[in-house]
Amino acid sequence: MALPSYVRIVEVGPRDGLQNEKATVPLAVKIELIDRLSDTGLPAVEAGAFVSPKWVPQMADTAEVLASIRRRSGVGYPVLVPNMKGLEQAVASGVEEIAIFGAASEAFSAKNINCSIAESLERFRPVAEAALAQGIRVRGYVSCVLGCPYQGEVPVSEVARVSKALLDLGCYEISLGDTIGVGTAGKARALVEQVSAVVPLEKLAVHFHDTYGQALANIHACLEAGVAVVDASVAGLGGCPYAKGASGNVATEDVVYLLNGLGVDSGVDLEALAATGAWISEALGRPNGSKTGSALAAAG
Amino acid sequence: MALPSYVRIVEVGPRDGLQNEKATVPLAVKIELIDRLSDTGLPAVEAGAFVSPKWVPQMADTAEVLASIRRRSGVGYPVLVPNMKGLEQAVASGVEEIAIFGAASEAFSAKNINCSIAESLERFRPVAEAALAQGIRVRGYVSCVLGCPYQGEVPVSEVARVSKALLDLGCYEISLGDTIGVGTAGKARALVEQVSAVVPLEKLAVHFHDTYGQALANIHACLEAGVAVVDASVAGLGGCPYAKGASGNVATEDVVYLLNGLGVDSGVDLEALAATGAWISEALGRPNGSKTGSALAAAG
Repeated sequence: MALPSYVRIVEVGPRDGLQNEKATVPLAVKIELIDRLSDTGLPAVEAGAFVSPKWVPQMADTAEVLASIRRRSGVGYPVLVPNMKGLEQAVASGVEEIAIFGAASEAFSAKNINCSIAESLERFRPVAEAALAQGIRVRGYVSCVLGCPYQGEVPVSEVARVSKALLDLGCYEISLGDTIGVGTAGKARALVEQVSAVVPLEKLAVHFHDTYGQALANIHACLEAGVAVVDASVAGLGGCPYAKGASGNVATEDVVYLLNGLGVDSGVDLEALAATGAWISEALGRPNGSKTGSALAAAG
Repeated sequence: MALPSYVRIVEVGPRDGLQNEKATVPLAVKIELIDRLSDTGLPAVEAGAFVSPKWVPQMADTAEVLASIRRRSGVGYPVLVPNMKGLEQAVASGVEEIAIFGAASEAFSAKNINCSIAESLERFRPVAEAALAQGIRVRGYVSCVLGCPYQGEVPVSEVARVSKALLDLGCYEISLGDTIGVGTAGKARALVEQVSAVVPLEKLAVHFHDTYGQALANIHACLEAGVAVVDASVAGLGGCPYAKGASGNVATEDVVYLLNGLGVDSGVDLEALAATGAWISEALGRPNGSKTGSALAAAG
C-alpha cells in the first residue's frame, strides 16, 4: 500500500479530449492549449493524431499543430498513429513518440477499427518496428479494459493478453483505458494486479473516464496497487461518444489535487493548470469539467 | 482491507441538500422527494431541521413535511435539532431520531453558531438528555473534519475530542463531515483510523462534499478502513455556501454505483434512485449533480 513518490501524468486533453468536441477547434487554440499545458510542468502532452480526417476530423490539422507548438525540453508530445501512412506523417513532423492502440474487446475492435484484435495487432507490428528503428518511442493503449459498450463484460485475461502483445511489439508503456468509465475501484485494482503478472507494473499506466463519477476512486486504488502513470485531461475535456451527455476523461486538475493531498509529487503547478482549464473551457464555450478547477476559479 | 458486506447510506438530500437551494422549494416537492427516496430502499432519509427560519428559511416547513410524508417501516427520518425549542417541535411532530452538530474548528463554531465548541456541546447536553429520555435516538455531526474555511487546518485530535464528546452525550453514531470538501483519500483514511481510537469504528459515519472532486475516492478509502455508514445526497443536491459555484454533497447514485461494483450491499435500487435524482433536478431546474444519474438517464 506504499504509494509511489512520483506520478507521471500524461495529459491527453489536446487529443483524446478535443477529438470528441463537436465544433471544430481553431488551430491557434490547439497550439495555445498545448503550449500552456507544457508550461505547467506536465511531462507529457498528447498533441494530436495522424488518422484519417474522415474518421476524426478534429485531428486533421495535427501536422500544423506540431509545426507551431513550442516544444519544451523534457516534455513528450506523443501522437496517435494507426498505420504506416500515419507514421510517415509523424516522422515528417519530427515526432519523437507515437501511440498505437488495441482493444481488449473483440466487439469494440470490430466496430471501432473494423478488424479483429489479432488483425489490429498485426497491422501495428510494422508500424512499431519502423518507429523503433528510427528512434521513435512507442506507447500502447488498450481500450475497454473494464467493460465494452457492445459486449459488456471484458475478461481480464483478454486485457492481459493484448497488453502483453503491445509490450512485445516494443511499447515502452501500456495505458489501460476504461473507455466507457464503467469500472469501480475494486475491479480497477484487481485489473492492475492481474495485468502486472505479464507487464511489469512500472510499464503500466491507467486511463479512466468519469462517466459514473468513479475515475478518481479508481485512480487512487491503482496508485495503491503501485501504478505511477496516470492519463488525464485538463478540464475533463472529452465526452464519451458512447453515452450521450455523459462526462469524459478524468480532469487533470482533480488528479493533481489528489496527488498533492497524498503528498505524491507530479511536478505540476496546480494553479497554472487550473487557469489553463478555465481558459480552454471558456474558449470552447463549455462548462469546466474539473471540480477542482471550478472550486479554485470560484475562490480566486 | 476487507470491505464491509453492507453499507448503510444516510440520505441527506432533503435537508443538507435542499437547505442550500436558493429558491424556496415547494412543500409538495419536499414530500414527494422524501417519499420517493424512502421507496428506493434507503434506510434513512434526513427529513428536515427545526432551526430558526431566519437562519435557514428553506427548512421552515419541516413540521408540515413530517405531517405529510408516508413513513415507511424500517426507514429512519432524522431531523436536525439545535436546542430545546427545536426538540419540542420535533417531539410534537413524532420524530424518532434527531441530529445534533458540533464543529471540530473553533473558528467555524464561532462564525456558524456563534459560540465556542465547548459552549455548543454544553448547549446540546440537555437536548440529548431530554431526547434520550423520550426514546428518541440522537445522531451527532462533526463539521470541518478535514479543513475549515476560516482557520484552514483542523487538528485530527480536535475531531477526535469533539466526536468523543458527542458520543458521551449519547449519540449512537457520529458523522464526520468534510464540510468544504478539501480532504483527500490518505487524510480521510488517517482521520478514520485516529478517531476510531476513541469512537468505535461501527459508530462512525462519513460525510463528504465533492468540492474538489475527491468525495468518492475518500469514501472508498474510508470503506477500506472499515467505515460502513455513508452520508450522501441524491443528485448531489446542495451547494457549498463557502465556495461559490462549487459542488456540494457527494451524489448518492455515485455511491451506490461504487458499492454495487465493489459487491457491497446497500439495499438501494439504483434505477429508482437515479429516476428520483433526475426528477428532483428537473423540479428544481438545476443540472443533475450525479454522474451516474446523468449516464443512466442518457442511456435510458
